[in-house]
Amino acid sequence: MKLVTFTHNNNTRIGAVTEGNEVVDLNFAYQAFLEAEGKLRSELIAEAYIPAQMEGFLQGGNESLSIAKEMVDYALNNRESFKHPLVHAFEDVKIEAPVTKPGKIICVGHNYREHIAEMGRELPPHPVVFAKFANTVIGPQDDIPFYPISEQLDYEAEFAFVVGKKARNVAKEDALNYVAGYTIANDVTYRDIQRRTLQWLQGKTVEGSAPMGPWLITSDELQDPSGLGVLLTVNGEERQKTNTANFVFDVPTLVEFLSNLMTLEPGDIVLTGTPGGVGFARDPQVFLKDGDVVRIEVDKVGVLENKVSKVEK
Amino acid sequence: MKLVTFTHNNNTRIGAVTEGNEVVDLNFAYQAFLEAEGKLRSELIAEAYIPAQMEGFLQGGNESLSIAKEMVDYALNNRESFKHPLVHAFEDVKIEAPVTKPGKIICVGHNYREHIAEMGRELPPHPVVFAKFANTVIGPQDDIPFYPISEQLDYEAEFAFVVGKKARNVAKEDALNYVAGYTIANDVTYRDIQRRTLQWLQGKTVEGSAPMGPWLITSDELQDPSGLGVLLTVNGEERQKTNTANFVFDVPTLVEFLSNLMTLEPGDIVLTGTPGGVGFARDPQVFLKDGDVVRIEVDKVGVLENKVSKVEK
Repeated sequence: MKLVTFTHNNNTRIGAVTEGNEVVDLNFAYQAFLEAEGKLRSELIAEAYIPAQMEGFLQGGNESLSIAKEMVDYALNNRESFKHPLVHAFEDVKIEAPVTKPGKIICVGHNYREHIAEMGRELPPHPVVFAKFANTVIGPQDDIPFYPISEQLDYEAEFAFVVGKKARNVAKEDALNYVAGYTIANDVTYRDIQRRTLQWLQGKTVEGSAPMGPWLITSDELQDPSGLGVLLTVNGEERQKTNTANFVFDVPTLVEFLSNLMTLEPGDIVLTGTPGGVGFARDPQVFLKDGDVVRIEVDKVGVLENKVSKVEK
Repeated sequence: MKLVTFTHNNNTRIGAVTEGNEVVDLNFAYQAFLEAEGKLRSELIAEAYIPAQMEGFLQGGNESLSIAKEMVDYALNNRESFKHPLVHAFEDVKIEAPVTKPGKIICVGHNYREHIAEMGRELPPHPVVFAKFANTVIGPQDDIPFYPISEQLDYEAEFAFVVGKKARNVAKEDALNYVAGYTIANDVTYRDIQRRTLQWLQGKTVEGSAPMGPWLITSDELQDPSGLGVLLTVNGEERQKTNTANFVFDVPTLVEFLSNLMTLEPGDIVLTGTPGGVGFARDPQVFLKDGDVVRIEVDKVGVLENKVSKVEK
């Protein structure tokens, strides 16, 4: 399933993108279904099982997911059955980041073997992890704001996973059961700000510096997150290219590692790292500028494309 | 005002600690007041102005704060006027961290002049900032869990401020208007885990590693956060001692610096840094062990005391 968060008439709600590229409003579809069944308080039941916000929906786990799947068919077959529209044309809604306010955004550094080898370094024994806060999250149709606090705006293509179930001390073998699905993120970084102190946070958590989306591919549909090609272009020019087969720490290992330190919660997002080819490391260096279009494609997931837009303040 | 989050009968709600050391349930007090005034829907009005959760309450700003102040007097004078208790003995409730799920916990490193001088280093031109996630938050009456993932558990005494108003690009001169109040935090750190990679996050965001409290002293009561003595003891032995007059970056400077990078939201917490004397830097090194009692005292704020407790997993 392709789960999205979308905005229509100023309402931000979750949906599913269909094969015909329409967007089904899952919560309304379930309300419509329940009403047709003659249930009392269908709004409350729908809110309990298929809340309109992604974090709440993910908390419902497989039970909510399987209802949601049925509701896609129901909505497509009963389009006009409810007081609110159940199905939108893709163009009629704005697609937001799949999770708009994740509790945690955990980023992994130095996680592609070929890039580490290229730099002549040894493989690290432990993942490097750092944070972004939720103020960074923007959607696939938003511009990347370029604030006048630095000249060194840079991209980082990232394959990301979203936690689906409370996870603490989870073993690698069991780890994928705790992953709701996958999406794409751009770990936009103000390089000089990142590097002016030892800790990267200040260059990583600038407002609007984590475009994500366009959707969450659920893990029942994308069962194996290894072996996916990752390609980043700027204005059509290839800048980063790798494959998730090259991870030093793969998704199950990251779930085990992180859940051994802390409780992961539904909606938490892990950015799995970026390969070589960032602007800062090129010779000569090249940074993003106003109007640049950054496109990240991940096999079996989709495309995340955002334009850079200078802002005054 | 001393604002607390407290639990009574499994309900976690905000309160005010009175001069007589009682805890007033602010939301219930306002409901009682509104009912006595003959208002319809007093529960909804109370929830709108004095929500029972701290983040929501802080969003209400000065308007909510001034109602809350009146409600303390009202509750003390009308103790038995409502279907729920309005006033609790301090011993009858459990005090939690003032904000139990902060959106951001931003920590500042290397922020005490005397400590930097002692190390022979130059004053840094920019604050060092790093993150903890909300999974770290525990209250003043909780034990610090010591997980068997490291032998190097360490303390860090921190004076902390809580954001009271959405803040973006706020000038230093105006900054204290965006601070709801002050509390104490212990930035508990697993040193070897912190230091095994360049980025500190993994040793900083371990479950339960941010005791905070006991309350939030509102900034109308503590108007000047400079010049406060900070003292940390372990089992009564002095380990860290400083004064917030020694900050490299004071509270207004931090608000300006951080809000220039990102939007700060009500309930966000900033830990302003720790002075010298942590266990890792002592000669010989000394780390926390099961049963140790760590006590942090900050002038005009109070005392945060937690026991270390080994846990199995």
